Amino acid sequence: MALIVHKYGGTSMGSTERIQSVAKRVAKWVRAGHQLVVVPSAMSGETNRLLGLAKTLAPAREDAAVQRELDMIASTGEQVSVGLLALALQAEGVPAISYTGWQVPVRTDSAYTKARIQSIEGDRVRADLAAGRVVIITGFQGIDDAGHITTLGRGGSDTSAVAVAAALKADECLIYTDVDGVYTTDPRIVPTARRMAAISFEEMLEMASLGSKVLQIRSVEFAGKYRVPLRVLSSFTPWDIPLAEEAVSGTLITFEEDEHMEQAIVAGIAFNRDEAKITVLGVPDKPGIAFQILGDVADANIDVDMIIQNVARDGRTDFSFTVHRNDYARTMELIKDKVQPATGAAEVQGDARICKVSIVGIGMRSHAGIASAMFRTLSEEGINIQMISTSEIKTSVVIDEKYMELAVRALHKVFELDVAKPGGVSEAPISG
Amino acid sequence: MALIVHKYGGTSMGSTERIQSVAKRVAKWVRAGHQLVVVPSAMSGETNRLLGLAKTLAPAREDAAVQRELDMIASTGEQVSVGLLALALQAEGVPAISYTGWQVPVRTDSAYTKARIQSIEGDRVRADLAAGRVVIITGFQGIDDAGHITTLGRGGSDTSAVAVAAALKADECLIYTDVDGVYTTDPRIVPTARRMAAISFEEMLEMASLGSKVLQIRSVEFAGKYRVPLRVLSSFTPWDIPLAEEAVSGTLITFEEDEHMEQAIVAGIAFNRDEAKITVLGVPDKPGIAFQILGDVADANIDVDMIIQNVARDGRTDFSFTVHRNDYARTMELIKDKVQPATGAAEVQGDARICKVSIVGIGMRSHAGIASAMFRTLSEEGINIQMISTSEIKTSVVIDEKYMELAVRALHKVFELDVAKPGGVSEAPISG
Repeated sequence: MALIVHKYGGTSMGSTERIQSVAKRVAKWVRAGHQLVVVPSAMSGETNRLLGLAKTLAPAREDAAVQRELDMIASTGEQVSVGLLALALQAEGVPAISYTGWQVPVRTDSAYTKARIQSIEGDRVRADLAAGRVVIITGFQGIDDAGHITTLGRGGSDTSAVAVAAALKADECLIYTDVDGVYTTDPRIVPTARRMAAISFEEMLEMASLGSKVLQIRSVEFAGKYRVPLRVLSSFTPWDIPLAEEAVSGTLITFEEDEHMEQAIVAGIAFNRDEAKITVLGVPDKPGIAFQILGDVADANIDVDMIIQNVARDGRTDFSFTVHRNDYARTMELIKDKVQPATGAAEVQGDARICKVSIVGIGMRSHAGIASAMFRTLSEEGINIQMISTSEIKTSVVIDEKYMELAVRALHKVFELDVAKPGGVSEAPISG
Repeated sequence: MALIVHKYGGTSMGSTERIQSVAKRVAKWVRAGHQLVVVPSAMSGETNRLLGLAKTLAPAREDAAVQRELDMIASTGEQVSVGLLALALQAEGVPAISYTGWQVPVRTDSAYTKARIQSIEGDRVRADLAAGRVVIITGFQGIDDAGHITTLGRGGSDTSAVAVAAALKADECLIYTDVDGVYTTDPRIVPTARRMAAISFEEMLEMASLGSKVLQIRSVEFAGKYRVPLRVLSSFTPWDIPLAEEAVSGTLITFEEDEHMEQAIVAGIAFNRDEAKITVLGVPDKPGIAFQILGDVADANIDVDMIIQNVARDGRTDFSFTVHRNDYARTMELIKDKVQPATGAAEVQGDARICKVSIVGIGMRSHAGIASAMFRTLSEEGINIQMISTSEIKTSVVIDEKYMELAVRALHKVFELDVAKPGGVSEAPISG
């Protein structure tokens, strides 16, 4: 008998029929002898509907009093979900009880609409599990010290599920979603992309932050901090496939760097087109110039991703950075109006038609020459590299977005990601 | 400065535009210097939508585990309402904060879907009022001793509002609804029906239980127990009518039986077509026969309203009672299958085409002959009376439903209810 946490996304909970399928799947795990805690999202579309109503009425100012009410409203979507799933399980003959975040309680700070989990009390949940009940807990929300409802921000249910699994010391946290695992790259770009049976936590963290949207990055960080074994798998397989088969499906995010994993030098290729590049040309090369440029950007609450400063020539240097494409126009305005006059920069250039492509793999720690193999491949395809950024287990380049598919396909091939590795399948820790 | 509780029904909260109107109305009261607590219902249609989803999934059995989840789900409708109204007030520049039943807390027993309020803690609400905030509290719901969400049953928001007013010792509780007050009878039946400026608590209790659907009877009982001054008024008057005018509009439910009120011997005429009559003919006239007939009915959870037992003749008597029309078929079956064989009754007759018409007035206590004036009037119209039931301040008769309009109009005329009484308008205790 194992203690398992299941998390289901909004699409999996999208209709009463889908909720019945979730209930049947959960019931299968219960009948195999496991203790189950389930964290469902709101029914798909519901959070948008609720926040749409709220935005019609809310004043423009974004103070805490307004955001408190947004959380009051948005949190109801998950509350409906947990109640409906509990009813569907009861209809299956499986005892079940639902709890909101405040009932567990899931304690958070008071940062409405983007709260962070501080602690989860497990006593109430454990008592129900011991009494033979499936416990269903609202994702996405908690309660602060003053008893106000908070939410964790979009996609927060992944984080809720991992946090619950950590608090209960669950044997595994299964994230059921609309894809069947983590791929070496996006199969829509590279048809030969393969699902990974396992990926290390650090690689997953890089993949998530670099553009793979399978898991919310905060949930991966949480899993890393508390070493929660995490599996991403599909909620669209028939609910009645054998449990032993389901338990090893998808992708396991693991903390054990075994021999097999070392063999895969590059685990996957991530990419995103969400960024834009800004270059400030001919700024004085003096201490404090980076702060002078980026201080104003930070004050405007704009997140900066890559930052490059070239070596100086004639006492002047060029400074480039990337921001989210949504912030591009605002950042360009800010740099031209404030930074250029203040620094005496010669020119400001911007480019929103860029793409970041990254190779990720813990094998890069111990294998030299991986980055240069990447650069050579791009060069052979005639793709100019505009910016480079590296960390211990990833190398990212910024290129013209029109070369994105070409770059991803070439890299996928050169690192042999379309070839299944022997031993690449890890044993699942659970079986029916 | 007074402490006022406003309650708004689902129709008043039916759209974001309507919610904005409610916010403007509440803001008007705040700007006149009053402290405001608002109890809104769920947006119209929302509770039905939520319970519709739940019924698709719920198992047939109606045990506590199922009903707990129904309350978990249904309570979200009001939670959305309070958040939206708080935002609309903030947009009006009025500081406002919303609370769910569990946050106040509103403590109830654990009878899910039909819980009763046990106590309301006012400290948190009073602190917000003192800080200059409008406090918005979910109707219809509370929390039990074990921390589970409960609901009060349909129409429970009226009761919530009155209970909150009682707990806070509010100066008045205003129930804003889709009619503009309590009428001498239904204006759709009698066009000359008049809105009463005031009605005594006891009369309102009888009117509510006899078929006037303006106020939920539990809320009237609660108001009586804690002597909460209650006013029923329209939420469809323009929000910007002068507060002094609004404050005396509608109908005040009062606890002071002043001289003016004594003048109105009959205050109003109630009626309903919701009942059906069952007569058991020729049952043995012996002790325990009423229990023998109605015991089985009570065991089947069927509420009985009127009960009539005629004097015996030849050791046999006839026994008649009324039940809700929805329970008619089930009750007939029960009586024929179980009661008739057990008692040896000669025959069972049923009639679902009946109507109950009642005259209500505290003046009946001190004025003889009111009931006989009622009987004479019906006799002159050729209407046969099938059953009679009386209390200190009301007389009810059961007649053929086809005579309902005729009976109500004749009684409305004979008791001069279409003539405005001098002094019938009571001073409102509040003014802007």
